[in-house]
Amino acid sequence: MSDKPLRIGLMGLGTVGQGVLRVLRKNREEIARRVGREIVVTHVATKDLDRNEEPLDGITVSDDALNCVREADVDVVIEVMGGYNIAKQVMLAAIERGKPVVTANKALIAEHGNAIFEAAAKARVGIGYEAAVAGGIPIIKALREGLAGNRVVSLAGIINGTCNYILTQMSAKGQSFADALADAQKLGYAEADPTFDVEGVDAAHKLTIMASIAFGMPLSFAAVAREGISKITSQDIQIAQSLGYRIKLLGLAKRTDKGVSLRVHPTLVPDDQLIAKVDGVVNAVVVQGNAVGQVGFYGRGAGGDATASAIVADLIDVARGLEVPALGFQPGAMTALPLLGIADVESSYYLRLRVVDEPGVLKAITSVLAESDISIEAILQKEPREHEDATVALITSVVQEARFDAAMKRLLALPFVREGASRIRVEHFKS
Amino acid sequence: MSDKPLRIGLMGLGTVGQGVLRVLRKNREEIARRVGREIVVTHVATKDLDRNEEPLDGITVSDDALNCVREADVDVVIEVMGGYNIAKQVMLAAIERGKPVVTANKALIAEHGNAIFEAAAKARVGIGYEAAVAGGIPIIKALREGLAGNRVVSLAGIINGTCNYILTQMSAKGQSFADALADAQKLGYAEADPTFDVEGVDAAHKLTIMASIAFGMPLSFAAVAREGISKITSQDIQIAQSLGYRIKLLGLAKRTDKGVSLRVHPTLVPDDQLIAKVDGVVNAVVVQGNAVGQVGFYGRGAGGDATASAIVADLIDVARGLEVPALGFQPGAMTALPLLGIADVESSYYLRLRVVDEPGVLKAITSVLAESDISIEAILQKEPREHEDATVALITSVVQEARFDAAMKRLLALPFVREGASRIRVEHFKS
Repeated sequence: MSDKPLRIGLMGLGTVGQGVLRVLRKNREEIARRVGREIVVTHVATKDLDRNEEPLDGITVSDDALNCVREADVDVVIEVMGGYNIAKQVMLAAIERGKPVVTANKALIAEHGNAIFEAAAKARVGIGYEAAVAGGIPIIKALREGLAGNRVVSLAGIINGTCNYILTQMSAKGQSFADALADAQKLGYAEADPTFDVEGVDAAHKLTIMASIAFGMPLSFAAVAREGISKITSQDIQIAQSLGYRIKLLGLAKRTDKGVSLRVHPTLVPDDQLIAKVDGVVNAVVVQGNAVGQVGFYGRGAGGDATASAIVADLIDVARGLEVPALGFQPGAMTALPLLGIADVESSYYLRLRVVDEPGVLKAITSVLAESDISIEAILQKEPREHEDATVALITSVVQEARFDAAMKRLLALPFVREGASRIRVEHFKS
Repeated sequence: MSDKPLRIGLMGLGTVGQGVLRVLRKNREEIARRVGREIVVTHVATKDLDRNEEPLDGITVSDDALNCVREADVDVVIEVMGGYNIAKQVMLAAIERGKPVVTANKALIAEHGNAIFEAAAKARVGIGYEAAVAGGIPIIKALREGLAGNRVVSLAGIINGTCNYILTQMSAKGQSFADALADAQKLGYAEADPTFDVEGVDAAHKLTIMASIAFGMPLSFAAVAREGISKITSQDIQIAQSLGYRIKLLGLAKRTDKGVSLRVHPTLVPDDQLIAKVDGVVNAVVVQGNAVGQVGFYGRGAGGDATASAIVADLIDVARGLEVPALGFQPGAMTALPLLGIADVESSYYLRLRVVDEPGVLKAITSVLAESDISIEAILQKEPREHEDATVALITSVVQEARFDAAMKRLLALPFVREGASRIRVEHFKS
């Protein structure tokens, strides 16, 4: 251990910031054995010291992050404050001073990463953001390095633990979305205002980042089509199961001849796929590469220590002097790819209709689909209970979304079809 | 793309060597965009050109690998010849000349890696061996870098596709080991002489490598306790399933207060664990880190393109100038840890006994276990068909292997217990 310690300025002391202190402390000896030098936190910036439970001996604490970045005994900056404005200022100030930055801020990277990475490349400063996607799963490193010999064809991820927990509970207990959400909130798996998670914004941030590394294109958050899980019913989950599928909120990035599609939406996944079996708050990402085939990753997507695992890995990369372009491609070699609107996406669809229980219904439905040149892969008709409507659920072959939606519009206009239909995309993971 | 191409000498042109040529060719543009320079094969050494199906334009072909290493227009050596002697000479010759080596040779690394890595560290030459473990899954990078912030507590892997295919077929079709093996041989998933795979030697090689990186200890192949799958019966698989378990050949590395245990053996895994659901020739590795918790990886463990994916990733690391100690720890910081003999391992056990169908049998069995202070977690008694013996199967709590074996010896000596008992270790993956 001849080298001097790597000195860290830690900006933010919430769950993740405290996790970083804890992990660096408990694994101090092992980390030094790996790196050949110590990693030491010299400064912490926080505006809320009251919730901190970690010892801060020998660490200078202030409430001014920007000032903290400038300290002479800070070699690397960890940004775990969250938010956009000050976090971005902190990162740019660090870059300006040639100090590498490690961050868990998915929103900032997804929405402002292009500018940040451009500044970092000019200054030849490294930015680590492993912790921004899927917590402790080393998926950024896998995409940027471990799978770098591949042309990535597609990727799909369960990248929001809150949604996966809710869908798992709805599936296991037959709960409604509202009840499962309330339980998740009680357990601390969902925020008081859950919009960011359940409407897919958080997953869209993570998808944006992964897609950019996978395809070598600029971060394109605005292009992500987004649909949340709040309209999923336990009936849909049950019908999907009887057809051999599980419903998951997936982030999907696909490259086709026509362009790239980026989307976050509830998805039927065949139950023999491993990703269909990823339950609870666990995250998972499946990558399809043109050499490796399908490769999958799963683990904790959140939590102080799991996120700290990713942050410390980035610190170790810095300490080891590893330098890879921020998004895995040379800055000059990033290429804007044509982005498909959701109407142009091709997918298979699950459609559930409430229909009056009378003869000829199935024939009329199948006729409309046949006229639209849409094949039916599976169909299920459920006998109504007394005084209730009947249910018809079906899964189509792959068809352009606009064409499917036009056919669905015709179906919904049929006299015997009631309000309350449900349409969910299906992903088969065929390699 | 200002820099000069990275020039490769490819030693070996079998399935993997051809895969490397194919992947470098088809992803040439994308790789150059990632790396900022081209990766070009200039030399190939092979003794068997007849089976090659890849174009070799502009490549110098010879049958002398050692000579090939010395060529001035070879910057990096890929060793995919297999075997020990010449492969080792090739690697040492490359190291001597300061040329990085990328290899898929798990046997050589596991058995001679300490000497090779020592030579490489002295010469400050990088050795890439991502392809040696679990094919295209970037597990070496994950252990060495992505999870480097963790103290690894344990790891477990399905790291032999042949065995997992055979066990999956036995489970799905009720086949015997012999029949499933014959099918695997027909499909090319098993060699004509399958010993290396079904007796766990191949898995032990891969486990040795992963354990060394996980724990920062020298490669210790000789310390791996090994038991193959040839004695597993379809009856055991069925009973295990009815108790809520699947049988997998696992490579297991665990660190306890008493020492490290390294072992490859058939294992009962609870069927709600994701690794229990990994079927067919797919590989999977689950790592338990003290920060990240449980994190898992799965993908193709063999095949030309999947293995080439790992080799090309290593080449890209070389081209990017990344340098990490070969086993993830600084050469001077590797520590020999106490290694537990199998008799000292603590495990839960599955025991199946054939017994004469008479009163008092269950009482006698449970008495012996109670006297040995071994708790029973689950038990199942199957009524015999006519003229057959009855079956008693049970799963114990965690107990030292020597103590369990002593109790088992007493059980087998009971007058009503027949020949043909079966004892398989159980792994619960409790975190």
